[in-house]
Amino acid sequence: MNTLVTLKPLTERLLEIQHLKSAADVLSWDQEIYMPPLGGEARADQLATLQTLAHAKLVSSEMQDVLGRWINPETGGLMTTSGDLWDEASRALLRETWRDFSRASKLPSDFVTRLSRECALAQQIWIEARKKSTFSEFLPHLQKLLALKREETGYLGFTDSPYDALLDYYEPGASVAMLRPLFATLKARLVSLLERVMASSVKIDDAVVYQSYDTSRQLEFSRLILTAMGYDFQRGRLDLSAHPFTTSFHPTDVRVTTRVYEHEFPVCLFSCIHEGGHGLYDQGLDPERYGTPLGEPLSLGIHESQSRLWENCVGRSRAFWRCFYPMLRQVFSDRLSEINMDQFYAAINRIKPSLIRVEADELTYNLHIMLRFEIEQDLIEERVHAKDLPAIWNEKMKGYLGIVPERDADGVLQDVHWSMGAFGYFPTYTIGNLYSIQFYDQASMEIPGLEGEIEAGRLSVLTRWLNQKIHRWGRMFTTDHLVQRVTGKPLSPEPFLSYLEEKYGELYQL
Amino acid sequence: MNTLVTLKPLTERLLEIQHLKSAADVLSWDQEIYMPPLGGEARADQLATLQTLAHAKLVSSEMQDVLGRWINPETGGLMTTSGDLWDEASRALLRETWRDFSRASKLPSDFVTRLSRECALAQQIWIEARKKSTFSEFLPHLQKLLALKREETGYLGFTDSPYDALLDYYEPGASVAMLRPLFATLKARLVSLLERVMASSVKIDDAVVYQSYDTSRQLEFSRLILTAMGYDFQRGRLDLSAHPFTTSFHPTDVRVTTRVYEHEFPVCLFSCIHEGGHGLYDQGLDPERYGTPLGEPLSLGIHESQSRLWENCVGRSRAFWRCFYPMLRQVFSDRLSEINMDQFYAAINRIKPSLIRVEADELTYNLHIMLRFEIEQDLIEERVHAKDLPAIWNEKMKGYLGIVPERDADGVLQDVHWSMGAFGYFPTYTIGNLYSIQFYDQASMEIPGLEGEIEAGRLSVLTRWLNQKIHRWGRMFTTDHLVQRVTGKPLSPEPFLSYLEEKYGELYQL
Repeated sequence: MNTLVTLKPLTERLLEIQHLKSAADVLSWDQEIYMPPLGGEARADQLATLQTLAHAKLVSSEMQDVLGRWINPETGGLMTTSGDLWDEASRALLRETWRDFSRASKLPSDFVTRLSRECALAQQIWIEARKKSTFSEFLPHLQKLLALKREETGYLGFTDSPYDALLDYYEPGASVAMLRPLFATLKARLVSLLERVMASSVKIDDAVVYQSYDTSRQLEFSRLILTAMGYDFQRGRLDLSAHPFTTSFHPTDVRVTTRVYEHEFPVCLFSCIHEGGHGLYDQGLDPERYGTPLGEPLSLGIHESQSRLWENCVGRSRAFWRCFYPMLRQVFSDRLSEINMDQFYAAINRIKPSLIRVEADELTYNLHIMLRFEIEQDLIEERVHAKDLPAIWNEKMKGYLGIVPERDADGVLQDVHWSMGAFGYFPTYTIGNLYSIQFYDQASMEIPGLEGEIEAGRLSVLTRWLNQKIHRWGRMFTTDHLVQRVTGKPLSPEPFLSYLEEKYGELYQL
Repeated sequence: MNTLVTLKPLTERLLEIQHLKSAADVLSWDQEIYMPPLGGEARADQLATLQTLAHAKLVSSEMQDVLGRWINPETGGLMTTSGDLWDEASRALLRETWRDFSRASKLPSDFVTRLSRECALAQQIWIEARKKSTFSEFLPHLQKLLALKREETGYLGFTDSPYDALLDYYEPGASVAMLRPLFATLKARLVSLLERVMASSVKIDDAVVYQSYDTSRQLEFSRLILTAMGYDFQRGRLDLSAHPFTTSFHPTDVRVTTRVYEHEFPVCLFSCIHEGGHGLYDQGLDPERYGTPLGEPLSLGIHESQSRLWENCVGRSRAFWRCFYPMLRQVFSDRLSEINMDQFYAAINRIKPSLIRVEADELTYNLHIMLRFEIEQDLIEERVHAKDLPAIWNEKMKGYLGIVPERDADGVLQDVHWSMGAFGYFPTYTIGNLYSIQFYDQASMEIPGLEGEIEAGRLSVLTRWLNQKIHRWGRMFTTDHLVQRVTGKPLSPEPFLSYLEEKYGELYQL
């Protein structure tokens, strides 16, 4: 039987590539958090150098030769002539490496350099443009990035939509054809639920969470929650950034960021729980398999399922606050002494169409995604011009959520993704939402007394379950296979919709 | 006439190598300042990958071919056969690139990997060992590093002492043979001056600087001074670290660090001024020449001359405090209202043998260096064992300074250098001290009314002079040539000794 030991000539090469990619990730993290304002040009060159080298090493003839020992380059399948038997891990490692290799091989080296450089530059511009709410400053960079991404789809190839070629990078197997009906189902039921909620006689007062909360105590409390979740600060950190994110350089160095507003208490707290969910996934990958696909997160949808599971199923649940509300009340006794647990629970679960995606409630969140999904397709398929985006954005906001931002900073400029060239990324958020409920439902069935454990603050039972079922496997299984394996069912919007209808049916007495 | 344009095939390659080295520098900065405790192993691998690649690219056959177009590989001189004329910049660029290339070519790739990895690991261990003052924890790593450095001297070759091979990396042209008489001259006059100071009837009371000073106000004041010096925060930052240092990833991204103690006011202030001097050098390099030797600092001695010039000639001068003492008094009115400028000036210039090099006064500072210089030579030439270092250190401290540390953290473990494998680095501090006075004397002659400008807080006249005379040239001239060019004289201990004898003669009424 061939095992991972057989593949050492391959995994050694992959490890070197991973070190380069991790170094680039450190530079990107630093760029977002600590780099001085004028350092952006040089940083873009440094990043482009690292990414071009990593690409060159992945598509090198040496790599091709090594892969050619075991994989038939015509079919991408394992060589049958050798008659060798392979264990499951080795088969998965070869399958996924071949996927990465063949995808990367389609991209010319100079394209990788140009794309990397432009992404790093555009991100710097975006930060400034967002601060000043000047879309026009960002526009030329957005146009360059769109041209580059369209060029990329040409290299990668596609059957139906060029957008599929981009989607595939973030969510292998996803496609416009598969997402459209999924989003249509969601939209119908979500809009209907939203209408009923808005028409309900129950009016939730959430003014309490928009009072003044000392920012350093907010951060302290968030750190406490992260620790309770099992996020390991010996192998991680919490920093502030314009847009909360998680990055990993190795399972021993996984960093989350948040933002904190004095008058918007939920922002810091829930972004910490959310990023903490991502962080647990990255800290939970097998360090022995670092550098290989088996040591990498499976897809962005699966990644997002972890963050949303913690943020929503846990962080917005009654059970969680039965444990943590008394502590919160102690930390902010000046604010919360008059508010009971039920009032607090209602306040953090209030449904209200709002402008900022990452601060949206569970129900309207996916409407934000649909809007972006539509715009991205139109941009990539050249049905709309980037210069018209602010108007398009605002019109779609009106259609989906009935509100329009006053400033582009709260509209089309709010997300970092496009400045990173990450078109095709947003749909993975909705996919992640669906998975999160499927996984949580399964955990509730398999972990005896899960709700009681959460009420007692023993969140680590859930962390362990997620690690055993999902984190530690990396890219061993495809997403379809993993979801089947964990839940016995394929991806479905039904559990998510039922969850929302039940939770908000109760809260709003529908 | 051939110019830098001719050399584009070379400078493009050098630029790529520089991007890799700058990326490694970002990773090292992050390691010292923000990396979580358990991230060290992976970081060591990432650093080793980057440094091995940078080395491989420098010594590649492609590089050899490119250099071979213009340089005779036998002599290292410009080809005479071509009969081409070269401008001064191109000649310097080729001379210095050849120096780097031939030095790097002597080192096997696997040695570069092993050394880089061990340095990164040892630094993590040192941080912990210093905290706990456990030399035994650091010892095995120190032994490994010493073995590696001895191995390196074997590759590099040397005539007299293997230590010369290491010195040459930090201070091209320096050697044990040249340093010994220099240190002997210094030692004789310094020890004699110290004896007279200690015997003086003038006793300086510096208790005022060891009261409690709010640490965030200390940092604020230090930032103000850095800004007045011309350190550009748009192209830089100030962070906290175990050992203050300066690092540069490009002239647009130059970072300084400091440490701050509530009860030791001078630590933060003078380390900021010191690192600010380094930072001005790095920010003052020509960004157009980034990636080539002409965009790099000349030597560590020259680098240190900049930091010491600012720290001592400016930061410990009466003129400087005539401007800044009134501000300082405002910031710390609770502490300084009873202390006049002369008392403060005396307090920050008190001569007192002390344990920590970076906090030593101007007079005893070089005795700390001599101790390290002797120990390093003995280690590299295998006359002593690493395991005996604490005892050797303490005995030498007693000999040079008459005091002995109670804990190794305040003795043999105090400096970061050995954990970085930086043997041969310390002597550049003394060389820098000598240069600093030579440069400052020259600036006083050339800048009309320099003292008055400093008194008025217009420090930038000095910054500009240093930039024009030193910073912007990078490695255009050798150190000997630069010092001759700027001051009309070679390196000499005389100006430094006269400076000390005059300054402290006055202060201690000798």
